Order: sequence, then structure tokens, then C-alpha cells
Amino acid sequence: AFRDSRYVFLANCSPRLQKMVLSQVHKPRLVVCDTMNFYIANERDGLVELLGMVDGIVINDAEAVQFTGSHNLVRAGRAILQMGPAFVVIKKGEHGSMLIDREGVFCLPAFPLEDVVDPTGAGDSFAGGMMGYLAKIGKTDPPALRRALAYATVVASFNVQGFSLSVFQKIGLPDIAARFRQFRKMIRF
Amino acid sequence: AFRDSRYVFLANCSPRLQKMVLSQVHKPRLVVCDTMNFYIANERDGLVELLGMVDGIVINDAEAVQFTGSHNLVRAGRAILQMGPAFVVIKKGEHGSMLIDREGVFCLPAFPLEDVVDPTGAGDSFAGGMMGYLAKIGKTDPPALRRALAYATVVASFNVQGFSLSVFQKIGLPDIAARFRQFRKMIRF
Repeated sequence: AFRDSRYVFLANCSPRLQKMVLSQVHKPRLVVCDTMNFYIANERDGLVELLGMVDGIVINDAEAVQFTGSHNLVRAGRAILQMGPAFVVIKKGEHGSMLIDREGVFCLPAFPLEDVVDPTGAGDSFAGGMMGYLAKIGKTDPPALRRALAYATVVASFNVQGFSLSVFQKIGLPDIAARFRQFRKMIRF
Repeated sequence: AFRDSRYVFLANCSPRLQKMVLSQVHKPRLVVCDTMNFYIANERDGLVELLGMVDGIVINDAEAVQFTGSHNLVRAGRAILQMGPAFVVIKKGEHGSMLIDREGVFCLPAFPLEDVVDPTGAGDSFAGGMMGYLAKIGKTDPPALRRALAYATVVASFNVQGFSLSVFQKIGLPDIAARFRQFRKMIRF
């Protein structure tokens, strides 16, 4: 049912499985993958191969350090860029995120909240917000990626304000758009 | 020699000494203090009293948590606001900084660097960059404070690229202005 998907997010699982899924998609416009410590340690070759087949990767700070051996996230991101993808997104949890591509480095703080209830799912909702925005606007250029990271930040911030999907069941696009505008003002100087 | 200073930064030392210094300044326009774990634990009353006499405080994340008992930095910042200052700056080291005032929350990532040599002095150069900018432009309104935090971020980023004052001995205002513009672009979406 998803073979015609244009925007493909290969969520965190074995690179072998990620490649098998990707091979079944006909003509994807944008392919982004996730991964985790277990596959970095145990299926490194498969992951490196996968990186030659995707447009981008979303990875957290600890995974980027583990994968590249660099404790500096800018260097870690650039090392991953060398493996093939056009962009690398490094998630830093409550400390925000970075986008590293050929244009340079873009960075964002997390959306500051007084009421963090549960961080479970923050990374996945971040990736979902990012992919959803890109699929919606139909662009994947650097300015679009930057805005996508900001939407990702906003979507993840709603996620952590409740358990499971409880917040998402209550909000809609206008809430996301309103917090996006608030976030933009919050970091402007 | 400094009794006529308009912009006063009470660097990290005993609140008793900070108050003694402040009492000797004739007509300060802006007074900001720093503090640390030792005084939060051992001279808490003096610190609370000092907070009623200053316009702002610059404090790091661990100190804000220790001082207020809140692990949420937005709440910690608002708790400190209740003690008197008009603004609270929370430094998060490599993770950036936050400004909390009556208008809300402003937040910035750190300036991303590939070549961090020594973080010693980052907090002090941050505060110096902030105060220097405010003294130079002669404004202390919220937009000025936001730009001051960005200049603080930039000055601190130069500091960590070398040991001691080695970088500051080589750079001038044009370098700081150039990185400020670069930083502004780096977080724009």
C-alpha cells in the first residue's frame, strides 16, 4: 500500500530491513533514515551502505558520537555527510537540534516548556513533524529543511507534554502553526 | 576608580562582598550579578537579599537548579524572577542560553564550533560580552537584552577556541560583528 510513497522515513530498525523496505518503493522523492546504538555497533556495514542510498539521516547526539568517534557534533555531522546523505539532523533532546548540510550548520534550541511530562516518543514525533512538513510543502531545499526542523521541534514539544499520544489526540494544525510562530519569535534577536 | 560606573557586573564572589561593592557605586544604570554553588549553599540569605538589589542575574543551569530546587529551567528562571531581578540569564554551556523576563522566554543555541580547545572562562566571557554590548549601546530594553545574549554567545565562542586570553588577543570588534551576523543567519528559519 505504501509503494508509491514519495516521502519515505525509514524508522529505526535493522539497516537490512530498512534497505528491503526502500527497495520496494517505486519513485521516492525524499528518503530519510533513523538508526540507533544497537545497529551502529552490530550492523555498521549495512548502515554505511544504507547511508549511500538516502537523502538524509536523523540521529541523536549520543548515536552520532558513537557512529563517528567524534565528540564534537559538528565534526560528527560532517563525517556522516561524507558517507553519502545530503543532510544530517542531530537531535539533542531538551537541548535542541542541528542540521548539517553542504551549506553549513543550522541550529535550534528545543521549545522551552514548563510542563514536560514524558520524553518518550520525542525523537519519533520530531522526525514525523519534519517529514510531514516536507511532504506537505513539496520542497526539500535548505530553507525548507530549516523550517522542517522548526516544525519538528514544535511537534516534539507537544509530544512531551503528555503520555503516549494524549496531546496529539487533542491538537490540530492550527495549534502547531501557532506554536511555530511563537517559537520563531522566541529565538529572534 | 570605578565608583562612577554605569554598568556594573558583580562577578562571582560572596554576596556580602558583592553588596559591599555595589554600595560604593554612585548611580549605576544596570547591575547584574553572577554567583556559584558555594554561595547558594552557604550564603543563601545574602544572595536572596542581593537579588532584590540587582537588575539581572547570570547563572548556569546547575546553579539555577540548585538554587530553586526545580529541574525545569523555565520554572527555575521564573522562580528567581520572583526574588526581584527584572531578568534571569541561564547559561547552559555548549547547549546555549536562555533569557527569562516578564515578556517570556528567549533562547539561543551555543555557536556551533568544530574546534573547541578549552571551556575555561566561557561563562565570564559570556557575561563580559553581554555587559559590554549593553554598555556600548546604552539600552537595556528586552530587544537589547536579546541581542546582548547573542553577542555574549559569540564572545564566549571565541574564548573556547583557545587557552586563556589567546584568542581575544588576536581578534577585534569586526571579528565579533562578523560572527554575530553569521550566528543570526545560522538560526534563521
